[in-house]
Amino acid sequence: MARNTHVAADTAAPPITSTLATFVAGHPARGWSDAVEREAHRTFYNWLGCAIGAAHHEAAVAALGAVQVLEPAAQATVLGRQEKVDIASAALVNGITSHTFDFDDTHLKTIIHPAGPVASAALALAELRGSSGRDVIDALVLGIDVACRIGNVMYPDHYDRGWHITGSTGMLGAAAACARLLHLDVQQTQMALGIAASQPVGLREQFGTMTKPFHPGGAARAGLMSALLASKGFTSSPRALEAPRGFVQVASDKRAWNEATDELGQRFEISFNTYKPFACGIVIHPSIDACVQLRERGVQADQVERIELRVHSLVLELTGKKEPKDGLQGKFSVYHGCAVGLIYGRAGEEEFSDAVVNDPAVVALRNKVQATVDDSIAEEAVQVTAVLKDGRRIDVRVDNAIGSMHNPLSDAQLEAKFAALVVPVLGEARCRDITGQWKNLAALSDIRSFVALCRP
Amino acid sequence: MARNTHVAADTAAPPITSTLATFVAGHPARGWSDAVEREAHRTFYNWLGCAIGAAHHEAAVAALGAVQVLEPAAQATVLGRQEKVDIASAALVNGITSHTFDFDDTHLKTIIHPAGPVASAALALAELRGSSGRDVIDALVLGIDVACRIGNVMYPDHYDRGWHITGSTGMLGAAAACARLLHLDVQQTQMALGIAASQPVGLREQFGTMTKPFHPGGAARAGLMSALLASKGFTSSPRALEAPRGFVQVASDKRAWNEATDELGQRFEISFNTYKPFACGIVIHPSIDACVQLRERGVQADQVERIELRVHSLVLELTGKKEPKDGLQGKFSVYHGCAVGLIYGRAGEEEFSDAVVNDPAVVALRNKVQATVDDSIAEEAVQVTAVLKDGRRIDVRVDNAIGSMHNPLSDAQLEAKFAALVVPVLGEARCRDITGQWKNLAALSDIRSFVALCRP
Repeated sequence: MARNTHVAADTAAPPITSTLATFVAGHPARGWSDAVEREAHRTFYNWLGCAIGAAHHEAAVAALGAVQVLEPAAQATVLGRQEKVDIASAALVNGITSHTFDFDDTHLKTIIHPAGPVASAALALAELRGSSGRDVIDALVLGIDVACRIGNVMYPDHYDRGWHITGSTGMLGAAAACARLLHLDVQQTQMALGIAASQPVGLREQFGTMTKPFHPGGAARAGLMSALLASKGFTSSPRALEAPRGFVQVASDKRAWNEATDELGQRFEISFNTYKPFACGIVIHPSIDACVQLRERGVQADQVERIELRVHSLVLELTGKKEPKDGLQGKFSVYHGCAVGLIYGRAGEEEFSDAVVNDPAVVALRNKVQATVDDSIAEEAVQVTAVLKDGRRIDVRVDNAIGSMHNPLSDAQLEAKFAALVVPVLGEARCRDITGQWKNLAALSDIRSFVALCRP
Repeated sequence: MARNTHVAADTAAPPITSTLATFVAGHPARGWSDAVEREAHRTFYNWLGCAIGAAHHEAAVAALGAVQVLEPAAQATVLGRQEKVDIASAALVNGITSHTFDFDDTHLKTIIHPAGPVASAALALAELRGSSGRDVIDALVLGIDVACRIGNVMYPDHYDRGWHITGSTGMLGAAAACARLLHLDVQQTQMALGIAASQPVGLREQFGTMTKPFHPGGAARAGLMSALLASKGFTSSPRALEAPRGFVQVASDKRAWNEATDELGQRFEISFNTYKPFACGIVIHPSIDACVQLRERGVQADQVERIELRVHSLVLELTGKKEPKDGLQGKFSVYHGCAVGLIYGRAGEEEFSDAVVNDPAVVALRNKVQATVDDSIAEEAVQVTAVLKDGRRIDVRVDNAIGSMHNPLSDAQLEAKFAALVVPVLGEARCRDITGQWKNLAALSDIRSFVALCRP
């Protein structure tokens, strides 16, 4: 529902455009803890896997077809593909592919998927300039901080009224990241944020269409071009974010200005970023996690008499499809999720393909999954019991599913997710090469050697 | 002031995305009156003059510098300049220059400047494709109809809350025009409108900066790319405009759906388009008009003892600057406007240059202009009396200033405006060549021969 509570214009808003520009232009390189530095690498690596994985999706093919009408210069890599295009088009297409599987990162406080707009813009520009890995990671951390902080200022009202917040804050994060990569001064960085403020990209009505992943791509392109414009002396309002007719007040009735600047430079929003282990809605994740654990405890499909789930009613409301007919329907079936979790030990995009959803072995096990509603169990929890043919009962309780803030993916699990996405596109060897380098990205003197690995 | 009256989501909105797509894809070529056809040519010619006139403005130089970082292919002309760039960048830069002088067309019902987004996108695409003049004029009429009708649906609430409506409806007009030029079918045209709906460009907070003219340019580029994406099979919501989380309901509390479709194909919004005779705020226009009339009646500056104005109080509120120091301040001085009107018989961009504002003859006459507030006189009217040194008093009353709906610029006056803008950039001969052809644009088999005249 579009929410329009009655609020007056705030003429006394603090100068957040100026404050954020000063921060982005002036914060020292690697001016944060090891934990933040590590999360930045995890965010980048997870984003990269999602983008490469969707390189041949029909949305990528259509978007690439459109930008090729422009006869683009071969400046930057379309991740996972042979083609190179101009940096604005690369930011667009890589932003689209990174969000196509709905498998990318999530800043849970705002449900922003921050890497899509920010990393897509930053990497394209960095490839053209031959920026160092250090500069790329710095741009990523600072850009994501700007996008998510503006998200914190406006969420939930901005999202509730229908904006797809990933693309309607992402242009600011992308502009900040690119301004940093271009080494713009405070004043030019402020102009870049201002130019970007006029270009939010994203409506929730587009969910279920290719325009949903277009949003982070469009935001990446808008932010990149905003930084380039500012670098050439293009001007914007120095109060474009906070003024009564500036972005925040035009697009949201919630205006928690303090969120933009509290602990700025101490607390980094990338610390709150999470990575999906499974390529489906978060509500099924505990059940899949439990079945993966059953598999790790030696349970095999042919031993199973039945699998009993006790779940919150919301789980069946959203994902109660008993007999999914194709991959997309499979994403709305907790029964399918459990079956692939036990059989394959994972639930990536491949496990939600039409072929797997209709695989007799998967169908057979799916039919042995029984779900009971129990609202004494939290939405994010599940109680699973595998009843085996020999009469044994094996219980698994999951309270914090893998991938949640309290139980984040390990680096090894991120690497497994990456491989499942990337091997089908680039092959084993190349996947290994990239995975051998991702933790040392910041040490690279020139990012181009790394990007070259992401091209067949 | 941002206005947020409380309204609920409208779940029963009519399918205007589909209706407008059917109209754009299916309306017959030149399916309108001679008056509409003539207005389309006037709109295009006025837009062209504004774009060429600002070809060397610092905003144009900065924008061109930014797009050249992309090493664009030489697909389309940057109007008034040697450079050619890719069609998306040409749409952007020409959209910027066409609005840089605030001298372009105005759809008075919504204060949308519709040609900026629509013509900038359409001409760039038409140049690449070698489209006919007929196709360009058809695209212009239909694209402007879509942008202005969506403006009618949302105005004034959408504008009052801070959107620069030219860029936040223009992407729809540009998408419609480009979909028409690409001969997309109804379904693809609907997708193009949907993709564009996620990309409004423009905040009123940017007024007074280069990002104001960026808005029509950004909207032109967004609409053009939306049509290209749709032509390659990219998808969007078929209800992207009217759904509860679609563009109109997200961006406006006023949702007069009937405005989108009433008399569709009979009434064309381009019929309500107007062209500024003077390069300044509309509120000074009656006073300048009156002084131009004094000049036509033989009054010369050196004969003048004083000039008495009786004006509505709003005129002095907005433009009461007695001693402007530079060109920009001159645009907020009714006294300066009167002086140049009497001395030069016009008030184009040149008459608002720093040089003219500080010219002793202009300053001397400006000091002889006296304004009296009289709220019995309408905002759009003025009573002017020239008191001459020989004692004669010459009165001029203006109720409908030149350029208003009731007193539109004649074709000859449009040509004079065009020449004042274009001669300094392209020279007399080229200006004559273009002016010799503009009325026959629709008859051209290939628009490229005409566009070539707009390049030095």
